[in-house]
Order: sequence, then C-alpha cells, then structure tokens
Amino acid sequence: MKKLILIRHGESEWNKLNLFTGWTDVDLSDNGINEAKNAGKALMENNLEPQICFTSYLKRAIKTLNIVLDTMNLDYLPVEKSWRLNEKHYGALQGLNKKETVDKYGEEQVLLWRRGYEVQSPILAEDDKRSPFNDKRYKDVPRNELPLTESLHDCINRIMPFYHEHILKAFDKYDTILVAAHGNSLRGIVKTLKNMSSDEIISFNIPTGIPYVFTLDDKLNYVKDEFLADKETLRKQMEKVANQGKK
Amino acid sequence: MKKLILIRHGESEWNKLNLFTGWTDVDLSDNGINEAKNAGKALMENNLEPQICFTSYLKRAIKTLNIVLDTMNLDYLPVEKSWRLNEKHYGALQGLNKKETVDKYGEEQVLLWRRGYEVQSPILAEDDKRSPFNDKRYKDVPRNELPLTESLHDCINRIMPFYHEHILKAFDKYDTILVAAHGNSLRGIVKTLKNMSSDEIISFNIPTGIPYVFTLDDKLNYVKDEFLADKETLRKQMEKVANQGKK
Repeated sequence: MKKLILIRHGESEWNKLNLFTGWTDVDLSDNGINEAKNAGKALMENNLEPQICFTSYLKRAIKTLNIVLDTMNLDYLPVEKSWRLNEKHYGALQGLNKKETVDKYGEEQVLLWRRGYEVQSPILAEDDKRSPFNDKRYKDVPRNELPLTESLHDCINRIMPFYHEHILKAFDKYDTILVAAHGNSLRGIVKTLKNMSSDEIISFNIPTGIPYVFTLDDKLNYVKDEFLADKETLRKQMEKVANQGKK
Repeated sequence: MKKLILIRHGESEWNKLNLFTGWTDVDLSDNGINEAKNAGKALMENNLEPQICFTSYLKRAIKTLNIVLDTMNLDYLPVEKSWRLNEKHYGALQGLNKKETVDKYGEEQVLLWRRGYEVQSPILAEDDKRSPFNDKRYKDVPRNELPLTESLHDCINRIMPFYHEHILKAFDKYDTILVAAHGNSLRGIVKTLKNMSSDEIISFNIPTGIPYVFTLDDKLNYVKDEFLADKETLRKQMEKVANQGKK
C-alpha cells in the first residue's frame, strides 16, 4: 500500500486580510504557523512518516512544509519545489479585497471567479507588476506555459504533468509521499484520485493544515481517503474556507 | 565569474552548552536564528543572490539555510541535502562536555581530537544509540561509507565526492551557489579552494553565520575570498570559535 499525504498550507497574512492571493508570495500568519505544527503532530500520532516531499514556489506552502518536517524531526528529507504546484492564478483580482469585490461585482460573479470550473478571473497585463513574466523565479518557465489568469480547469491542467511525472513517479522509490500546496492545486490531485466531476470538485473544500491521507494500492489506484482530524475540527475548518467568498 | 558562498550554521543549543556535537541533530539557539537572519541581510546588502543551495542532513544547517532564504525572499530556490556535508563525526565524544573532557584528558589531547588533522576521536560502538548505523536517515548510505568516528582528514575525504560531483558541477548551470554547512565540512572546501596545507587548515577558524564568499573564474579556479562582515565583528566571531576548546 502507498500513502499520498496532502496538506493545504495554513492561514496566510492575506487570508486574514481577506484578499485574493493566487500567486502573490505572502507569508504565513502566526495562526498558520500553528496549523502547520499541528499537522506535523497529527502525522506523528498516526505513525505516518513521509520519505519525500513536494511543494510549490510560494512561501506559505514551503514554510508549512518546513514546519511540518521540523515538528517531525525530518528536516533532512528531500524536497522538490515546482511552480506547477502553485495556487490558481487569480489574474487581475490578485491583491483585491474579497468583500469589496463582492460589493462591486456581486456574490454570484465572485463565486464564479472563485469556483467556476471554466471561469477565468480578469486577465493580468503582461507588464503588470504582478505578472509572472516579470518575476525572476519563473524565468526558466516557457512563456506560453506561464498563466496571466486561470480557471480551476486551467490550474488542474497545469498541475497534471507534474503530478504524473514527479509525484506519482516517486512511488517507484518511496511508499509515503507528502505534498504541501494550495486549495486549488490540491483540488486537481483530489479530483483525479477520486474521479470527481467538475461540479463535485468545485463544492469540495479542502481544510487548511489538516493532513489529507490517500491510500493507494500498488498500481496507484485509489483505495480510501481520510482527514487526520476529529469531526468537529474538520467541520469548523471546512466551514471557514467555504465562507471566505461570502458577504 | 562564479560565486561560491559558504555559511557556517549559527549557534546551536549544544554550542551554548559546550558539548561535542558532531552528527547529533541539535537545534539552533535563538542567537543562532539571529545569526542566520543577519547572514541573509548581509547577502542582500552585497547583492549576492544564490540560484541553488546545498546543505547537510543536520537541522542546524538546514534551518540556517531556510532562514537565510526566507530573509532574502528566496524560499523557492532548489535545495539539495547530503549527509556528506555533515559536521565531522566526533565518535564517542559526541554528547560530552568540552570543558569536562579537557579536565579529564587535558587541553592538548582535546585540541588534537578537535583539530589534529589525522587524529580520530575514540570510536563509537556500532550498536551505540548514537551510531549512524541505527539512524533511519542514513539507511540508504553504504555501511562502509558511514563513519563511527572521523579525523578532519576523513571528514574532508568524505565531502570531496559531493563537492566535485554536485556543488562544482552545478556551476555548469548556475553562477552563484550557496552552501550552508558546518565548521569542519566547510574547512574541506576552503582547504581545496585555497590550496592550504593540513597545518594551515587546522588553525583556520570559520566564523559562524558570516557569509564567506569565494570568487572563481570560469574554469573554477580561485580568484579571491572575503567574509561579508566588518573587521571587528569578524575578529569577535573568530575568537569565539577558537576559544571553544580551551579551559
């Protein structure tokens, strides 16, 4: 049996401020740091020990991973970072307040931008200071692969090559793999593993900081999945995420 | 021109307690965390931006690197970890108090153990709880390569394959490389680059937390080296390290 552990990064400074973040590289809040420590403790209590880790190019996911590993005394594990595991790109919405955006465009439009499977946010200009074209960390990524906005579908399509060629491939060598990433990039993995429809994945909220453990058979087929948290904690965390786009 | 930046990890909990550490995986002290932050700031002030990083399997080096990268907003950089960059193995001295060891064996013997080029500390038993043979992180390393004690010469010999095949090799692709490691593993690199004798390297103390920058030409020959610190800071840091083994 193989284990694929997904962890959505804990609360960031911009979650707290209720801003659209996307590819903006914001830090974890103190609460987010605690969520990461608790995720590490939950893995230890459940005797789940990863052997290799994957994360995005964004510090809220990288630092969540670093804290989880340090809590578990596994700082030495190999870590592979990829831009393909970044959060969904929110285009020109990045940096806007979610409530103000709701007031201006209406709850329905914002929910579509946040959760419409095929709906892209308004596109960023190439020369916008928020554009990944101007960010040194993406300079080796071909321009035609770098997004200026994304739908959830685009985001999932962008993740899949990395998921298949790096994450699943690592099961050739390892039994337990940890991926620390973002709400929407992890949705891509969950949708594929659970064979969900686009409607199902849109309404599926991944709670922050709670290890989400998939058991796979030796042919990497889905066997089961579970969150490492008691029901009450889980309910609260899912509710918090689901309420973010509402007035 | 190429830049190779060496950083010796900041103060650890055991430096503070004056214990022989070696491969014991102890954490940074608060002072060590600050030293790492200052190293990151010094690199920024000198416009030195690494593109890839190397570190050991020990958390005091890994966390120094993580803090340097986070201070510089470079969390996303690729990091390769290797047991070959670990500190010199201190054998059965690991965990003993340096002053007590001096009282028992004399300053001269302790200085030999600490700094004799060919002198190994007393060897660990294979089944000692401190033995790397019993540590899961080294389970993929062939037993005949794993030390139960080391002289500085052994330590340098152990580092060299990684230095040539990974660190220098990375200059094929990158211009600026950062290595966060330990006093004695970094000595191996310094000795090679500056073509020092064994006597010279024994008396050469690398200060903690101060970036040590080597400039190399395109054929990777030594051009110059400098510490990124004012003379007074440098003098104090070097003195602190040199005094550790004295009564």
